[in-house]
This record gives sequence, structure tokens and C-alpha cells, in this order.
Amino acid sequence: MANKPSIPKGTRDFGPVQMAKRNYIFNTVKGVFEKHGFSPIETPAMELRETLTGKYGDEGDQLLFRIMPRGQKVSALAQKIIEAQSANQKLVESSADEALRYDLTVPFARFVVQHQNELSFPFKRYQIQPVWRADRPQKGRYREFYQCDVDIIGSESLLNEVDLILTAHEVYAALGLPDVTIKLNNRKVLMGLAEVIGKSDQMVDLTIALDKLDKLTQEKVLEELTQKGFSDADLELIKPVLNLSGSNEEKLSTLKELLSTSEVGMKGIEETETVLSTAKKLGVNNVSFEVTLARGLSYYTGAIFEVTHPDFPSSITGGGRYDDLTGIFGLKGMSGVGISFGADRIYDLLETKDLFPEEIGVSTELLFVNFGDQEALKCIELAHSLRQVGVRCEVYPDPAKLKKQMKYANDKNVLFVAMLGSDELQNGTITLKNMTTGDQENVEQSAIVAFMNR
Amino acid sequence: MANKPSIPKGTRDFGPVQMAKRNYIFNTVKGVFEKHGFSPIETPAMELRETLTGKYGDEGDQLLFRIMPRGQKVSALAQKIIEAQSANQKLVESSADEALRYDLTVPFARFVVQHQNELSFPFKRYQIQPVWRADRPQKGRYREFYQCDVDIIGSESLLNEVDLILTAHEVYAALGLPDVTIKLNNRKVLMGLAEVIGKSDQMVDLTIALDKLDKLTQEKVLEELTQKGFSDADLELIKPVLNLSGSNEEKLSTLKELLSTSEVGMKGIEETETVLSTAKKLGVNNVSFEVTLARGLSYYTGAIFEVTHPDFPSSITGGGRYDDLTGIFGLKGMSGVGISFGADRIYDLLETKDLFPEEIGVSTELLFVNFGDQEALKCIELAHSLRQVGVRCEVYPDPAKLKKQMKYANDKNVLFVAMLGSDELQNGTITLKNMTTGDQENVEQSAIVAFMNR
Repeated sequence: MANKPSIPKGTRDFGPVQMAKRNYIFNTVKGVFEKHGFSPIETPAMELRETLTGKYGDEGDQLLFRIMPRGQKVSALAQKIIEAQSANQKLVESSADEALRYDLTVPFARFVVQHQNELSFPFKRYQIQPVWRADRPQKGRYREFYQCDVDIIGSESLLNEVDLILTAHEVYAALGLPDVTIKLNNRKVLMGLAEVIGKSDQMVDLTIALDKLDKLTQEKVLEELTQKGFSDADLELIKPVLNLSGSNEEKLSTLKELLSTSEVGMKGIEETETVLSTAKKLGVNNVSFEVTLARGLSYYTGAIFEVTHPDFPSSITGGGRYDDLTGIFGLKGMSGVGISFGADRIYDLLETKDLFPEEIGVSTELLFVNFGDQEALKCIELAHSLRQVGVRCEVYPDPAKLKKQMKYANDKNVLFVAMLGSDELQNGTITLKNMTTGDQENVEQSAIVAFMNR
Repeated sequence: MANKPSIPKGTRDFGPVQMAKRNYIFNTVKGVFEKHGFSPIETPAMELRETLTGKYGDEGDQLLFRIMPRGQKVSALAQKIIEAQSANQKLVESSADEALRYDLTVPFARFVVQHQNELSFPFKRYQIQPVWRADRPQKGRYREFYQCDVDIIGSESLLNEVDLILTAHEVYAALGLPDVTIKLNNRKVLMGLAEVIGKSDQMVDLTIALDKLDKLTQEKVLEELTQKGFSDADLELIKPVLNLSGSNEEKLSTLKELLSTSEVGMKGIEETETVLSTAKKLGVNNVSFEVTLARGLSYYTGAIFEVTHPDFPSSITGGGRYDDLTGIFGLKGMSGVGISFGADRIYDLLETKDLFPEEIGVSTELLFVNFGDQEALKCIELAHSLRQVGVRCEVYPDPAKLKKQMKYANDKNVLFVAMLGSDELQNGTITLKNMTTGDQENVEQSAIVAFMNR
């Protein structure tokens, strides 16, 4: 292999610095999840092909990473192609028994159905695992990336919506991003809107068009609706909804009049009011009702969420309630609600705003310089005793030049360097250098634990 | 999808209970790694095909999970097969651009070469990620499993061997398994043995045969050597080596006489003595020199390790020193040493010996029973304040029958259940039930934080 080794496009290596930052996000998120009673699960990277195909639309099917068949199945595939005498893509793809996880939602639905008799419902789970999509890689879009999902399944209570709003609120407060906006809408409100204009059968077109309002002007979106067969009269009914303004209460109050004839619409408004007022009672004041929030996914049936930050162009968390996610795997009537945190986007945002805490960059707290075999042996003993009390420390393994060892300490962002040369070996002391201040102090070797613990 | 959903053979779902146990192992291991100055890295699940093929022998190549080509590459593959008019497995396999990680060692070598200019050497890294092998699944052998690897690369110092011995020693002490044996040998000793019997060119045959001593009798192993062309005279020289007994010092002393004419053999003995005596000085007394320890992997060149436990049939940790792991990717002269912890085996051993700490099974500490909307709202407020001080708690989302809610609390292994009904709502109290003792106590709502913190 003469060329410099590399990795598949759209994938990334995570070195110590990136790992520290990513683990900071994961640990913060996990800490909040666990305080809310969510338990972790993990599913295999590979799912059976039939578990995944047909779940993400035609585009999703094309973006699945399929596993190549092995052994006799390869021969069988080749034989089929030779017999068919044509380069049939479907044929090749259908020979795959497995495919890589595309998101965490479908595997979660499969998990719930498969293990329904072992689980206690409502089931509160979180899952932090990578997913794979054969997307065209571009800035901020990878072929392997982590998702952090949290769901409550098996309960229709709106307290679950509140639970997730609190969870998001606490996660962003803990990450130093309290200035997020938690956007809330309800699919039933959108259904109500479609109903009052007599276009219930075009709910999907309406949702897809509204979902574009954050990228296109209102004019363009209305044009799209016209093309989809919405009349001018329809658009006149839709416009005031798009142009709602004021406080959450004011928006909902106006909407109540507009949707008064739709039972489902009024139900959506009522649900939203309950969620908003409960959140407010708990001191969560950054929830904003946004009737134009639509979200693309087809399986949402109630509340929908999105979290945005003024300094980031796209949403950093999103989710909603689904009434029949597990139905595709044969288990009906399992309503649930969940949100997903975009780890890569949060990473980029924290990086831009310089919000990663400084201390997470420190792996080794204390490095012992190596001045030779006898000295190093003493250092290993001291390091051993420091580790008993939890200090992260290491002895440089070779008696290299001091400059090289100090460079290593600097590169590794070490807090203290300990120097124990032949003099110190004789008089039982050790010199400790604070790498931040540059201060040096000579202490008794027996006092090193006390020194590092102070 | 009418059938019960399932997952690919050889893969596993991890539910909350298994996750808690596995995370206990990972967190313990990580804690020790980090105290020794090892930093985490992660590499992509997919590597380029050419990074992996040819690195694990023919068998390994067959066990790789390859990614099926997509789009035009599928058509190209089909076209090739039609032109060749034969079911050629190699042709199909070579159409894969990517394959799934088979172990953590080759990706680590690739990582070090690719990022050599960003890294500070010696580089101490740990990596805990799943790997995939298309092996025939059987008890304890999976197609997806985690490896926990720790390596120091870029230093020839024997202090690194000592560092790893200490690391293993501390990991097993922390897991409640202090009665492990850390077996140590050195490939140079085995080379020396091959040299003194004049069979340096059959070092591989000798290693492979010795590696079987834990499964086969000595007779069978000697028979195998005879078949490989070792003479009776050779075997007479090998036998005393196989039958070494006594303390580490006694074994090494006998071996010194047997291998006195071999420079490399004497070097191996010297290295072993240094490592053993240093470990002993640090109070690590469970290291045992085992000249028959061979380990299959061909890239080891110095120390080799294995950790065993009296209650487990196979080794639970293994590793060794390699002088040229990165050479395959074009970077010469990077000596390193590493060990790998078998997470699944450690899991099974801790399970068998009932050594998982009880508290890891507790996710939610306190469950608030839901007696209705008004009561639940009060509970949510209390839960919210408890989370501020770190208590893991949740409110049951539906006003279900008490029996159902208590079953949920039991299934989830909750420590306390809080009951706040209409009476408590009026008089500002709450009843807390200790689920272990069954004791109930009625306290002021304002005292709940103090109660849970006591």
C-alpha cells in the first residue's frame, strides 16, 4: 500500500480532542436523560434488509448501505445476473440480507415489537448510536453520524410532551445554550387547517409546502400550493394562519376562531394549550407556538417540536408524537413521542461559540518526566499511589531529551509536570511545575498526593 | 410484515438491564485507562476495502462484511459478471469499496499513519467500539461485538509493558476480580527456543503448536511438531522448556541455561525479568511467566500477555508488543504494545459470579404515582426541583390503576415511590414509600429534596 491511507468519503476519524468534545455533549445529554428516567438501549448496526426497506421512501431505500452477500449467496447472485442477462439493480440489491441502520426510529420500533413482552410500558428509552446514509457528502453532512434519540412509548398523556420539552430545556441550559427557542406545533392543527379549507385529502401537500417556509418566501410557498391545486379562495383562508403574530396565547386565540368548525383542529389547539401552560408553570418560558412548523416526516400525528438557536441556521433538535410507529411491525395502538438531538450540529454550534469547557481538554493531569531507569522507577511508584486517589497521571516511558518530553506534556495539555532527577532521587523530593502559571515547587515525594489533591 | 420482527443472526439487542451491566464494565475500564493517561479515539465503522483485505489472512478476508456497491457501480458489477459469464466470487467481492471494521488494531494502525503529523508520540490511545465478523454464530461468539483496546505506540520502553500490566491489574481489581492471573511471555524467548534447536525458519509452526497447549495434551502438541518436521532430538530439547516449573525466577533461571547460546532468547529473558521485577516492586504479584504462552497473531515481536480467571475457560484479556504494525501502511519503525479486553467474556464472568453491583440496576430513583391531572402537575413541579439537585425521577404519565403504576415501579427497580393524592394536595404533604423496606413516611412537600438527599 504505497498511498497514504485514507477512509471512505463522508466518514471521519475522531481523535482525542474531538472525542473529548463529543463525549462532553453525550455525557451532558445522557445526564439529563437519566434524570428524567430514560434508560439506554442499543440495537445492532445491521438490521435485516426487510426491516429497513420501504420505511424511508424511495430516496431512503437508495441511501441504505446494504451488506454484500457472502459465500454461496454470492454465486447465486452472479448466476441470477447471468441468467437475466441484464444489469438489474433491484436484483442485486435484493440479494442483501442485511443493511446498516439508517436512523434510530425504525430500529426502536422493531425493538419495541420484538421485546414487547419483556418491556414495562410506558417505555422511556434513549439511544445514542451512529447511523449510516449513502448521501452525497458535503459540509456538515456525513455518511456516518451519531443520533441521540429519546422516546416515551406506550402512553398518550401530554405529560410526555412536557417531559420532552423539559428535557430539551435542561440539556441546552446544561450546554450553556439557554437562549434556544423550543418551537411547538401540532399536526392536528394542520389537519384542522386542511379540513376547514376542504382539502383534508391534501394534508401531505400542505405539510410539505409549509415545511419550506423557513427556506422560501411565503409567496413561493403559496405558488407551490396553487400548483398542487389549492384555489385562490383556499389560499385566502391559509394566509391569516401563516401570518399569525403575538404571544402564544394570542396566536392560539386567533387560530381558535379560524379553526372553530374543525373538531381535530380544536383538539390540536387544546393539546397545545395544555402543553404550553404546563411548561410555563414549570418556568420554561422559551417555548414558542409556531403554526408553520410542519416537519417532513409522515408518521407524526400530534405535537411536533423543533429547537433552534439564533446563531445556527438549522434546527438542532426535532421530533414529535406518532400514533402508529410500531404498526409497521404488527403492534397496533402504541402511541409515543420522541425527540432527536443533532450531535454534529450541537458540536459545531458549541465550537463556533467557544462553549466547550476548558477542563474537558485535559486527559492527563500530571506527567512525570523520565530522567533514567532508577528515577523512572520511583516515578512509577508515585504515579501508582496517585492513581489510587484518582489522579490521572503517566510516566514518560523513555529517558528522552527534556525538550521532547515537555513538548509531549504541552501537546497533551497536561496540568502539572513532575521532575525527579538524580538529586531528587537522593534527597527524597520532587519538583512540580504548574504548566499554566509556570510556577515550580519542590516538595517531599511523600507529599505528592497531598499536593495534587489540594 | 406479518412475522415477528427479528435481527440478523449473530447480532444482539441490548435492553436497559444489559446496557447498565455493559456500561458498568466500559466505565470501569475507561476510568482505569484514563488514570493511566490513555486518550479515546474512534474510527469509522466502514474502512476502505483495501485497508482491511489481506490483513487477517484468507480466513479473515472471508469473514469481512463488505458493503454492496451502489448506483452505477451496481450496473458495472452486473455488466462484468455478464461479460465473464461466470459466478466469480472474487469479482463480486472486489466491487465493494468499503468493508466493516474487523478489529480495532488495523484501523488503529491506519489512524496512526494517516494522522502521524497531528499526533504526539508516544501515543497512548484507547478505543471501545464494535467490530463485525461474518463468523458462524455460536454460544459466546457473535457477528457484532465490542472490543476494548488500549495501546502505546511510538516507544520501545519496557515501562509500557509494565503500564499495561498495571492497567489490567487495576481493571480487574476494580471489577471485583483480583484473583486473575496475568500471564507473560516474550516472542523473543520462543525465537530463542527455535534458534537453539536450529529451526528458526519454523518459528510459526512452533508458535502455532504451542498455542494449542491449553486445549490439547503435550503429547498431541509434540505429535503435531513431529508432523511439521521436528526431529526427536528437537523434541527432547523442547520438552524441558514445556515442563518448566517453580516460581517465575526459577523458571527463568532454568531457561537461561537452555537458551544460553541464543542472543535473541537471552534478550527475551532479560526483558521478561525487567518487566516482572518492576511489576513486583509495585505490588503486582499475580503476574506469571508462562513460556508456553504463544498467542496466534503473527505481528507480535516481544512481550505477549494473557489474563485468565480460574472460573472462566478462556482468556479474558490478551495482547503483546509489535514492532511493525504501521509498516503495512507505509510508516516504519513504530514499535508499540497493546492489550484488548474481552467485554463479552468479562460480562459473562461477572454474571456467573454475580459480581455486578446492585446499584447499577437502578435507573429511576423516585417514581411519582399519578392520581390525576392536578396531583400530577404538583408532582411534575416537585420532580423538576429534585432534578436540579441530581435526583433521577419521573412522574407516571397516566392516572392508571395504582397496581399498574406500582408494577411499573417494581419492573424498573425504583428505590422510592411518591404518592400525592387529593388529601396530600390539600394539606401540602406527600407520602414516600421505600420500595426495599416497604416503609412509608408522610412528609411536607417542601421537605422532599431534603428527604431524597439524606
